[in-house]
Amino acid sequence: MFPKETYVERRAILKNTLKTGIILFPGNGESPMNYADNWYPFKQDSSFLYYTGIDHIPDLYFLINLDTDEEILFGNNTTAEQKVWVGATEKLESYAEKSGFKTVKPLKEIDTYLKTQLGKGRQVHYLPPYRFEQKIALSDLLNIPVKELDAHKSVPLIKAIVAQRERKTAEELVQLEEAVNITRAMHKHAIVNTRPGMTEMQMAGQLNGIAVSGGGGLAFPIILTKDGQYLHNHASQTVLQDGDLVLCDCGAYNTMGYGGDMTRTFPAGQRFSPLQKDVYNIVLNAHNTAVAALKPGIRFKDVHLLASKKLVEGLTDLGLMKGNADDAVATGAHTLFFQCGLGHMMGLDIHDMENLGEEYVGYTPELKKSTEFGLKSLRLGKELQEDFVLTVEPGLYFNPFLIDERRAEGKYLDFVNYDAVEQFKTFGGIRVEEDFVITKTGSKLLGEPLAKTAEEIEALRNNQKL
Amino acid sequence: MFPKETYVERRAILKNTLKTGIILFPGNGESPMNYADNWYPFKQDSSFLYYTGIDHIPDLYFLINLDTDEEILFGNNTTAEQKVWVGATEKLESYAEKSGFKTVKPLKEIDTYLKTQLGKGRQVHYLPPYRFEQKIALSDLLNIPVKELDAHKSVPLIKAIVAQRERKTAEELVQLEEAVNITRAMHKHAIVNTRPGMTEMQMAGQLNGIAVSGGGGLAFPIILTKDGQYLHNHASQTVLQDGDLVLCDCGAYNTMGYGGDMTRTFPAGQRFSPLQKDVYNIVLNAHNTAVAALKPGIRFKDVHLLASKKLVEGLTDLGLMKGNADDAVATGAHTLFFQCGLGHMMGLDIHDMENLGEEYVGYTPELKKSTEFGLKSLRLGKELQEDFVLTVEPGLYFNPFLIDERRAEGKYLDFVNYDAVEQFKTFGGIRVEEDFVITKTGSKLLGEPLAKTAEEIEALRNNQKL
Repeated sequence: MFPKETYVERRAILKNTLKTGIILFPGNGESPMNYADNWYPFKQDSSFLYYTGIDHIPDLYFLINLDTDEEILFGNNTTAEQKVWVGATEKLESYAEKSGFKTVKPLKEIDTYLKTQLGKGRQVHYLPPYRFEQKIALSDLLNIPVKELDAHKSVPLIKAIVAQRERKTAEELVQLEEAVNITRAMHKHAIVNTRPGMTEMQMAGQLNGIAVSGGGGLAFPIILTKDGQYLHNHASQTVLQDGDLVLCDCGAYNTMGYGGDMTRTFPAGQRFSPLQKDVYNIVLNAHNTAVAALKPGIRFKDVHLLASKKLVEGLTDLGLMKGNADDAVATGAHTLFFQCGLGHMMGLDIHDMENLGEEYVGYTPELKKSTEFGLKSLRLGKELQEDFVLTVEPGLYFNPFLIDERRAEGKYLDFVNYDAVEQFKTFGGIRVEEDFVITKTGSKLLGEPLAKTAEEIEALRNNQKL
Repeated sequence: MFPKETYVERRAILKNTLKTGIILFPGNGESPMNYADNWYPFKQDSSFLYYTGIDHIPDLYFLINLDTDEEILFGNNTTAEQKVWVGATEKLESYAEKSGFKTVKPLKEIDTYLKTQLGKGRQVHYLPPYRFEQKIALSDLLNIPVKELDAHKSVPLIKAIVAQRERKTAEELVQLEEAVNITRAMHKHAIVNTRPGMTEMQMAGQLNGIAVSGGGGLAFPIILTKDGQYLHNHASQTVLQDGDLVLCDCGAYNTMGYGGDMTRTFPAGQRFSPLQKDVYNIVLNAHNTAVAALKPGIRFKDVHLLASKKLVEGLTDLGLMKGNADDAVATGAHTLFFQCGLGHMMGLDIHDMENLGEEYVGYTPELKKSTEFGLKSLRLGKELQEDFVLTVEPGLYFNPFLIDERRAEGKYLDFVNYDAVEQFKTFGGIRVEEDFVITKTGSKLLGEPLAKTAEEIEALRNNQKL
């Protein structure tokens, strides 16, 4: 946990913004795998964690009653019999002390407490629930049918939390550095140790191990695949072969719950082919151009479009595209090869605060999210501010289904040389991703640098001293 | 998947047992971690998998209408746009073919289908849901409030499934062997590579990696701890030190979804201390005695009590217990050191079919589960039959809280030398666990043998050739 003052101050800011009503933070429960008591690794809700610092304990509720000036943690301490199974656990009262609030009540009392407050006409502010156990519990506690929970979420609460969590403090940046460095160790391990003949899953398992050993586990399911042209293609039993490109997108949480998220693409054999290196350099150039543009005040949507233009220029040099690059981007022709967004906010969540809603996290009332193919997958569009933490992850993805579909539709004929593109239907995909914090004048890479150019990656694979 | 005939025959047996109504198998959905689209690794429901063979695809329903002689899979194929994200996926119609049934319908049609059938007065048989997303969905589909779902579960369906799944076929045993051998590789790795100075989590991470590389991932959260006296104490950031005993209880699924579950206890340093070896041998003797007793017709509860008696005899030799061993077991004095059950069924679930209810899986109308401390944690009590697969896992756990509590209560004074036990409050815990199939005349170990005596374990740690 951070020092007590951190949590007290975070809550003070929140209370000062909302002023009235009850703020309810349901902590996460255990998630059953294939029967009720066989659980996935516990993951605390990020907003609960942000305002209380209490991790690793399921079935807690934290509540701030702005009208009565109460802060209450509802939950159960370990019983004597439970000590047979789990030993001595820290008391909730001790966590309350470390988090800077006073009151702990048994879990069963929350129902009466809330019903009484609702009876007095008090408003309960809650975030849109994303866990099914949260939905069932909130539905019971607040007398709202499961399907109507989302309609009653508190937009003022969402906005207040986004405003706080989107700007990372110095003590959070220390944690994010650590998470990115665990993430970096995973990528270094993959680049050094992947060999033709291994399955994707074999290497993904090793990376999973590094993340668990790091203390916080995987931040999201590992993408480690020769089929990087499919954006969310997870590791499978496919065997990696000399000549394949391996796209590895993975990251870890640190012990404080902060995450890292990087991507490297490297050859399954010893070296990139000349063509693979050419395409790699297009992506790397777009990456570097985007990073150079990061600074407070610039819209991330514009950085996304700038990177898209660089991709188009590179593809034009390679003979796959043609015409004016700005026009190509304006018509969306680049989305044939770059179907997703340039990056996203990162923090306690890898897609930070995604459950709060992209319209609040990544956009503003003035800048709404586009519904066009490509831009609709850009999670962050708004103006950057100092202390935002985000990923930059351009890529080129030669998806044979999409190429066939767009060609059949007769789309982008002014900008795409489809005959040349045909050759790339077995090329795969390339992405280069790193994490940055926005500074006063630009940006700063999070974590120690890791081999990024094609030459550096080849050197790391073949000479492990780099 | 197994050959089509396997699934056709499994369903034929089930249909023949139930005869009327609709059997509904909801497949599992994705489980959100910290926002809706950040998922834990997908795990299919075991009964869905058993009767259809279809894994890796969320949000499916399989339904057998006994009154109309229909078998229908409800689910959605990958859309063109989804191919951008996940590539080409096998069609549900192809799975249907491989599973030996004909009809696939879009997911959205299940609601009307079921409502129509309910309108005709047909009974819907379903298993008690354990996933929260299943509860919400079933509640909607069947018009039953979430809290009342359990009361309407189908006991005839539960009994029919238990009777089928509890006896493993030859082709299932091949899969179970594979799962146990992946599990064995995890344990061998831990015994060989654990060193003083590592954290529990560091080694647990490596084991997690082996399980993921194996293709099916972890079957349950890893217990790897110097505090083995707490039965479900998972790996933590505790540093292992020379002199500690490390209790490692872990297992993996294989790619077909079958699980393995083993425990080894070994010294964090090079050798067991003489006292650690003495206690180890008591547990090992109980283990071997229990295994020798396994055969069709014997009640597993009696094997549990036999192992308990061996533990008492060993503790008596060691000076921790006294008096007649049978009387000690009859009064439950052994539960001061062995608080749980000797083992459980194993198959597609590690605690096989636990979600169906222990009263059906582990007990019978004639042999009800005890409510006494100790026996109430014995998941399997009934007579063994040929082709049952189960774990044997006796242990000794010196839980300081329980020792203090029982001493303060004045319990077991005729059988426990509490003064001698005081010395053991920092001893830790020891468990030895392996997996067996019941044969015509006895039992057979699943998986290749792994170092099991204290001497074999020391040799494996210190001479990796064993």
